[in-house]
Amino acid sequence: MSTFQTVRGMRDLLPEEAEVINYVITKARQTATLYGFREVITPIVEPYELLSAKSGEEIRQRMFTFKDLGDRTVALRPEFTASIARLATTAMKNEPKPLRVFSVGSVYRYDEPQKGRYREFWQSNFELMGSAKPEADAEVVLLTNSVMKNVGLQDYAIKLGHVGVLKGIMTQHSVEDKMQNAVLQRMDKKEYEAALALISSDECRNVLQGLIELKYDSVFDAVKKMKTHLQGYEKALNAVENLSAILKLVTESGCEIETVDPAFARGLEYYTGMIFEVHVPEMNIALGGGGRYDKLIEVFGGEPTPAVGVAHGLDRIALAMQSQKTALKTEEKKKVVVVPIREEQKGEALKIAQMLRDAGVSAKFEVMGRKMAKAMEDADKRKEADYAVIVGERELKEGKVVVKDLSKRTQTEVKIEELAQKIKS
Amino acid sequence: MSTFQTVRGMRDLLPEEAEVINYVITKARQTATLYGFREVITPIVEPYELLSAKSGEEIRQRMFTFKDLGDRTVALRPEFTASIARLATTAMKNEPKPLRVFSVGSVYRYDEPQKGRYREFWQSNFELMGSAKPEADAEVVLLTNSVMKNVGLQDYAIKLGHVGVLKGIMTQHSVEDKMQNAVLQRMDKKEYEAALALISSDECRNVLQGLIELKYDSVFDAVKKMKTHLQGYEKALNAVENLSAILKLVTESGCEIETVDPAFARGLEYYTGMIFEVHVPEMNIALGGGGRYDKLIEVFGGEPTPAVGVAHGLDRIALAMQSQKTALKTEEKKKVVVVPIREEQKGEALKIAQMLRDAGVSAKFEVMGRKMAKAMEDADKRKEADYAVIVGERELKEGKVVVKDLSKRTQTEVKIEELAQKIKS
Repeated sequence: MSTFQTVRGMRDLLPEEAEVINYVITKARQTATLYGFREVITPIVEPYELLSAKSGEEIRQRMFTFKDLGDRTVALRPEFTASIARLATTAMKNEPKPLRVFSVGSVYRYDEPQKGRYREFWQSNFELMGSAKPEADAEVVLLTNSVMKNVGLQDYAIKLGHVGVLKGIMTQHSVEDKMQNAVLQRMDKKEYEAALALISSDECRNVLQGLIELKYDSVFDAVKKMKTHLQGYEKALNAVENLSAILKLVTESGCEIETVDPAFARGLEYYTGMIFEVHVPEMNIALGGGGRYDKLIEVFGGEPTPAVGVAHGLDRIALAMQSQKTALKTEEKKKVVVVPIREEQKGEALKIAQMLRDAGVSAKFEVMGRKMAKAMEDADKRKEADYAVIVGERELKEGKVVVKDLSKRTQTEVKIEELAQKIKS
Repeated sequence: MSTFQTVRGMRDLLPEEAEVINYVITKARQTATLYGFREVITPIVEPYELLSAKSGEEIRQRMFTFKDLGDRTVALRPEFTASIARLATTAMKNEPKPLRVFSVGSVYRYDEPQKGRYREFWQSNFELMGSAKPEADAEVVLLTNSVMKNVGLQDYAIKLGHVGVLKGIMTQHSVEDKMQNAVLQRMDKKEYEAALALISSDECRNVLQGLIELKYDSVFDAVKKMKTHLQGYEKALNAVENLSAILKLVTESGCEIETVDPAFARGLEYYTGMIFEVHVPEMNIALGGGGRYDKLIEVFGGEPTPAVGVAHGLDRIALAMQSQKTALKTEEKKKVVVVPIREEQKGEALKIAQMLRDAGVSAKFEVMGRKMAKAMEDADKRKEADYAVIVGERELKEGKVVVKDLSKRTQTEVKIEELAQKIKS
C-alpha cells in the first residue's frame, strides 16, 4: 500500500502550525469571556435543511452534503450561525436576552483551494442575540478588533457597510427578495456590472451605480455623502442613520474604522443591517466578517429576535500573524529528558519522571532503551529539552541524580527530593 | 418553517456542558505537555481508504462515508490513529524517533445512541511511535492515569491485557489473520461462545477457553497463572513476558492496575501487543483505551515503526466527572455589567467597558437600551455579574462612576482610572 495523502483541500497541521491555531483559539476564547460571551459546542454534521435555509445559493452549492446510514440528508456545517440560531430557538429559547454565544471549530466548504482558503478551515464565531440597538453592533465590531489586537496583529483594517442601504433602494424600486440576493452576491464579489445588469429599473440602477462610485474623504464624510445621494429613499436613509450611529460608537471607543463602503455586500443571505470585514494588506481575503441578521431566528421558528454576529477565520489570522511576524506570547517552561544509565534503573527512573510531571515539569522518558551517550546526542539534536536527568546506580544509592544542563553543558548532582524545585527555578 | 433538531446521535453542548468538555481538553493538553507530546491537527474528513485500511470490519461499517463533489470517497474519521500513522509516514517521516504526538477533536461513528455513546463524540489521542520497549507501553498507561487524576476522577480502574497472547495461541494453531480478527472482535464484546465457535481446532479452543476462565488472586498472580496455562505456546508466552514487564514498570511508578484480563481483546484490528482500558463503576463503556500497534505504520507505506497509543473519550470522562461530582478547578474572576444611565452616556459607558476589558476584566455592556432599574433586575436574575458599573452624567463630570456590589447590595463612587484595579482586587 502506498503513502496516503489528505483529501484535496484538507490539511495536516504540524506541531508548529497547530500551536499557532491553538494560540488564536485561546485568544478568541479569552476575548469572548472579556465580552461576556459563553461558549457552546454544536455538531459539525447538521441537517441539510437547517444549513441551507438562509445561507445563500453559493454556499448551498459548495456544502459537503450526503446521506447518513439512516437516509437523512445531512451536511458538514459551512458556518456556525444557522446552528446557533437553532440553539436559540430550542435549548436556549428561555434564556434571558441578550444572549451572547461563542463557538470555535472547523467548518467546511467545497472551494477551490488557495493560500488561506481550505475546504476544512477553522472559525471562531460570536453571536449577540436579542438587541436591535447600535451598541450591540458596536460590541461585535469592538470584540473583533480586540481579537486582532490580542493575537498581536499590527496592521489590519476594518471595513464597515450596511446591507439595508442596498436593500432599501431595491425594495423601493420593487425588486424582489430573490433578485436582491442575486444582486448582493455579485456585489460581494465586486462584479458590479453583472450585479447592475440584473436590475430592470434605470432609476434604481443609477442610484446603485452612484453609490458604487461615491467619492469621499473619510469614513464620516462617506456617511454624509451617502445621505445626500439617497435623498427620497427613506429605508436606505434609515440604514445610513443606523450605520452612522454604529460608526460613532465604535470609533469613540477607540477602534479605528478604515473604510465605510457604500456598496458593500456579503455572500450570506441572512444579513439585514450593518455588515463588516477585517482585512490585512498582504491578503485579498477577509480575516473575519459579520453583521446583523434580524430575521434568521424567526425563520427557524423562534420569536422575532434581532441579532448580530461575526466569524473569524483562524487559518487566515494565523497566516497574517506569520506574514506580520507576530510572536506568540507563551510562557516557556523548562523541559527535561529522564535517562536511566542501565536497564536496572529503568523503574526508578520512570518513577522520577512521574514525580517531575506531578510537580508540573514536562519530562520525556527515554523509551528507546538507548545508551546514555546516544540518548544525550538525540536530546541535543532535538533541542526539545533544557536538562537531562540521568539516573545511575551510584547516585541513586545516595538519593541523588545527575542533572545535565544541555545548553551550558555543565552537570551537577541533585537530591531527588529537590529535583523538581531545582528545575523549575 | 418549524423548529429544527440536531441530527440523531449528535448534540448541542450548552455552556455548562461545553465548559466541562473544554476543561477535560485543557487537562489532556496539559498532560500531553507534561509527557513531552506535541499537538497536531489532522482533518476530520479523510480518504475512506485510509480510515478503512486497518480499523476493523465493525468500525468500517459504521463510518460516515460519502462522495465529495470531486467524486472522492471520503469518510469522517472514526478515530485518530490512522491519520496520525499517515502523518508519521509523510510530513513527519524524517522527525527523530521516538515521536510523541497528541491530538484532540471530534470523531464519528454510526452507533446506536445511548448514555455516553454519541455519533459525534470527543476524543483526545496520544501516540508514541518508534519504540518497541515496555517503557513506551508504560508511558502511555501512565499518562492515561495522569489524565484521569488531573481531571479529578477518584474512582476508576485500569484493565490491562495483551492481544499477543490470543493471537499467539491462534497463530500456533494456524488460524488465519482474518479469522483471528473475527474471533477477537467477538471476544471484545465478551461474546465468548460465538468467538470460540469460529475455531475449528479443539485444542486451540480449549486453551482459549482456559484463558477465559482463568482464576487468579491479583494482577501479578494472573500473569503467573497465564504462564503456567500457556506452556508450549512460545509466542503467547513472549506476550505474557512483555505484559509482565509493562505491569511491573507501571505499578512501580505508582499507577495501580486493577485487572489483568487474560482474554482481553479490543475492537480495532491494528493492535499487536499490550492493550488497556479505563473504566468507572457507574458506566459499562470504557472512558479510554489503547494499546500497541507495531505494523500499522508499515501498512501505510512507512518504515517498520513500533508504536503504542491511547484515545480517551472526553464525553464519557465528562459524564463520569458528573456522576462522581468532580468539581472543576477554575479561577473565578470578577465580572461586571456596564450600564449607562441615559442614552447620552452610551459612548462614554462603552469606552469604560473597553477600558475594563483591556485590563482583563470581563465586562458585559448593556445593549438592550434598558432603563437602569430593569438592567439591574436582569443582572440580578442572571447571577452572571458581581458588580454593576453605572455611568451617569453627574459622576462622569467628576471622572467617576457608581459601582454596585450585586451580592452585598452596596454602592460606592469610584474614580474611572481606579476602576479596573478596584474590581480586580
